[in-house]
Amino acid sequence: MERMDQARARMWLSTAVAEARAGLAEGGIPIGAALYGADGALLGRGHNRRVQDGDPSMHAETSAFRAAGRQRSYRGTTMVTTLSPCWYCSGLVRQFGISRVVVGEAETFHGGHDWLAEHGVEIVLLDDPECAALMRDFIKDHPALWNEDIGE
Amino acid sequence: MERMDQARARMWLSTAVAEARAGLAEGGIPIGAALYGADGALLGRGHNRRVQDGDPSMHAETSAFRAAGRQRSYRGTTMVTTLSPCWYCSGLVRQFGISRVVVGEAETFHGGHDWLAEHGVEIVLLDDPECAALMRDFIKDHPALWNEDIGE
Repeated sequence: MERMDQARARMWLSTAVAEARAGLAEGGIPIGAALYGADGALLGRGHNRRVQDGDPSMHAETSAFRAAGRQRSYRGTTMVTTLSPCWYCSGLVRQFGISRVVVGEAETFHGGHDWLAEHGVEIVLLDDPECAALMRDFIKDHPALWNEDIGE
Repeated sequence: MERMDQARARMWLSTAVAEARAGLAEGGIPIGAALYGADGALLGRGHNRRVQDGDPSMHAETSAFRAAGRQRSYRGTTMVTTLSPCWYCSGLVRQFGISRVVVGEAETFHGGHDWLAEHGVEIVLLDDPECAALMRDFIKDHPALWNEDIGE
């Protein structure tokens, strides 16, 4: 797999940001994700659904993974997420052999992306100011909800 | 939290085994799980739903976690599973601070339970012959489906 260029990473991130904004508009936690295939096709997209569905298992990444349905292999796929993936979502990436993770930002929450890099996953960290602002504002306004979502 | 006695662990495992058997009867992958509260109350139970719902995100443990709904804290809870948890489900346990994992067997699949133990999770490994037989038979009859479920 060739290394990703930043322009494509930012284009794909915009799909995840649109999901995060949709979640926010629904009164939810503003984290979005998208799973892209090895050929660049969008396989699935989604956002955190804790508030909307009362479902703690649907983080942004698991939601995008679920939307992609059954896949025979995740080789060459890219998980794009507005926020550094928590251990739950990092475990998803490792178990299923997702090849690359594009991370919008890891400033408001530092999840398992270093661990994934150690285990051979390509990490593209974008330090995106829009992603960081979305989370910073949300955490300030809803600290208890955010802590619930990360088990703290 | 006091250490778990084996009689209680085996009693709780029977709930997970019943889930695994229900999944098998539906034509699915025979892995079941249950989440118990600190007070011993059953919070949620479920089984792998890849085949039944075409949903790769519903492993047994995530299914039980989902069925338990939103919880403010997982301190003192126990995840009981018929099979050693994969990285995805191990990440779930670590992220949400689930205190203990009862594992039916780790012979047919060795997941992340050692990693969890290193990170302070109490692991009760039961080496249950019924759990092992369920998986051994399933893997023999449906190797491709099993490999799909663990991303291999």
